Amino acid sequence: MSDQPSAADEIMDGVYRALRAHGYADLTMQDIADECSKSKSLLHYHYDTKEDLLVAFLDRVITDSERRIAAHADDPPAERLAGFIGWFVFEPEAVDREAFHIALLELRTQGPFNEPIREQLVRSDRLLRGTVVDILESGIEEGVFRDVDVEETAALLVATLDGARTRQITLSRGATAADGDEAEGESAAAERSDGSDGSDDSDDSDGSDEDGSADEGSGHAPSDGTAGVSDTADRPEPAYTRAVAEAALRRIVEPLLAAGAELPSLEDGIAAMAPVDEDERE
Amino acid sequence: MSDQPSAADEIMDGVYRALRAHGYADLTMQDIADECSKSKSLLHYHYDTKEDLLVAFLDRVITDSERRIAAHADDPPAERLAGFIGWFVFEPEAVDREAFHIALLELRTQGPFNEPIREQLVRSDRLLRGTVVDILESGIEEGVFRDVDVEETAALLVATLDGARTRQITLSRGATAADGDEAEGESAAAERSDGSDGSDDSDDSDGSDEDGSADEGSGHAPSDGTAGVSDTADRPEPAYTRAVAEAALRRIVEPLLAAGAELPSLEDGIAAMAPVDEDERE
Repeated sequence: MSDQPSAADEIMDGVYRALRAHGYADLTMQDIADECSKSKSLLHYHYDTKEDLLVAFLDRVITDSERRIAAHADDPPAERLAGFIGWFVFEPEAVDREAFHIALLELRTQGPFNEPIREQLVRSDRLLRGTVVDILESGIEEGVFRDVDVEETAALLVATLDGARTRQITLSRGATAADGDEAEGESAAAERSDGSDGSDDSDDSDGSDEDGSADEGSGHAPSDGTAGVSDTADRPEPAYTRAVAEAALRRIVEPLLAAGAELPSLEDGIAAMAPVDEDERE
Repeated sequence: MSDQPSAADEIMDGVYRALRAHGYADLTMQDIADECSKSKSLLHYHYDTKEDLLVAFLDRVITDSERRIAAHADDPPAERLAGFIGWFVFEPEAVDREAFHIALLELRTQGPFNEPIREQLVRSDRLLRGTVVDILESGIEEGVFRDVDVEETAALLVATLDGARTRQITLSRGATAADGDEAEGESAAAERSDGSDGSDDSDDSDGSDEDGSADEGSGHAPSDGTAGVSDTADRPEPAYTRAVAEAALRRIVEPLLAAGAELPSLEDGIAAMAPVDEDERE
């Protein structure tokens, strides 16, 4: 691969930033065009519809995940499993990642109604569960893990980590512009309303009231403009993903270990899977 | 309580049916008015905005959950825990429940941007984790459970069950009208598109293409109109919520039991928490 990003890479980076800033429900092709400095007609030249572009984006995100998982395929199985678990951990301060995962969660709610999106979600589910199965099978073969039901363990671990992430991002107060280093994207994210303003609800007269309520919601937050102390104090303590990842390692993984095998460290797992480039997805 | 439903009850039932049929993102006050046979102006008399109505609805759902949990407060702790776990299990055929939980998940994605909604989500989180903590503390006192970290166990179990449900509903193909017994609501749910048609994206010319793709998506599904065999075959097997609930009971709950205490049955737990009225929420 060359150092020069391709047009496709630039468009996909634009989708990533646009999802973070606007979420999925209100996203327009113009928002994406603005984020990647392309014209809307160029986007439409490559992708007929917004849906096509988002399906291509999901495909890219999952392919990136496949690559990151493959890069660790030769690590020792217990360390690989700690890396898989650590991958889901993020701190409440990781506002970019949180905003991106909220948009992904919105996209996931379209699965039952949109077959191309659902196909990508099924592919992602197979990748995640298949990775845990592969790690466990390697570990059983090497004598690190006991001979456990690998499919059941995989479903349990993936559900647990996904649930912790979903709870952390939905219970958290949205990013405030003061928290981040990319003012443009963040302030747009902070300004996201409840998704109902300006919708096609043209016979509905309460659009402006809804905006008012949403503004009031963030307006009376005591932590606005401070260093985020109250913001953090109001979050579930400790962060769901970290608390649940630690619990999963001791409650679910430790009992799988063969006699004499050592429980890997969550911190090492988090470090192993940390993105090298902070703009990297997932 | 009288047998005659109050106006508030009728409106809340209308919100429930409207969410099932239309989801959250595209929901209008008119949709809700239609579902409860009230006028839109009556709804606006009671609730200034659609957001106020949805927050009142969330409040009602959580209050219902509090009541159902309280009704089992005197059951033996191990059975209560199996009931809590069984509460999250639903079969892929439970299309009404699935459609409702997809709409709830859409609502949850608004948490970071909408303080009144987030407050209800935080309340729900406290109820769920607090219930597990209460069950475990009773069980430890009675000598049924070992002296475990109750807060950690509660966060782990709630994340696990929530994650299993989120994965089951997002990976599933949406309800088809043929599956259910309430044709009106179901067919509307089946017709839900990807949430982007008719949006405020007025400078975007691809609205009809998006509809076309969504229709094609469900149109080429081989199971349309059949008894749902292929539909089921394409789902994760077995259903995520049941597989993960069974795994959670054996992998997370069984190690908590004191010597001699018996592992409760998931089937008994599911039966204990099953809604008496099939139209009941959650």
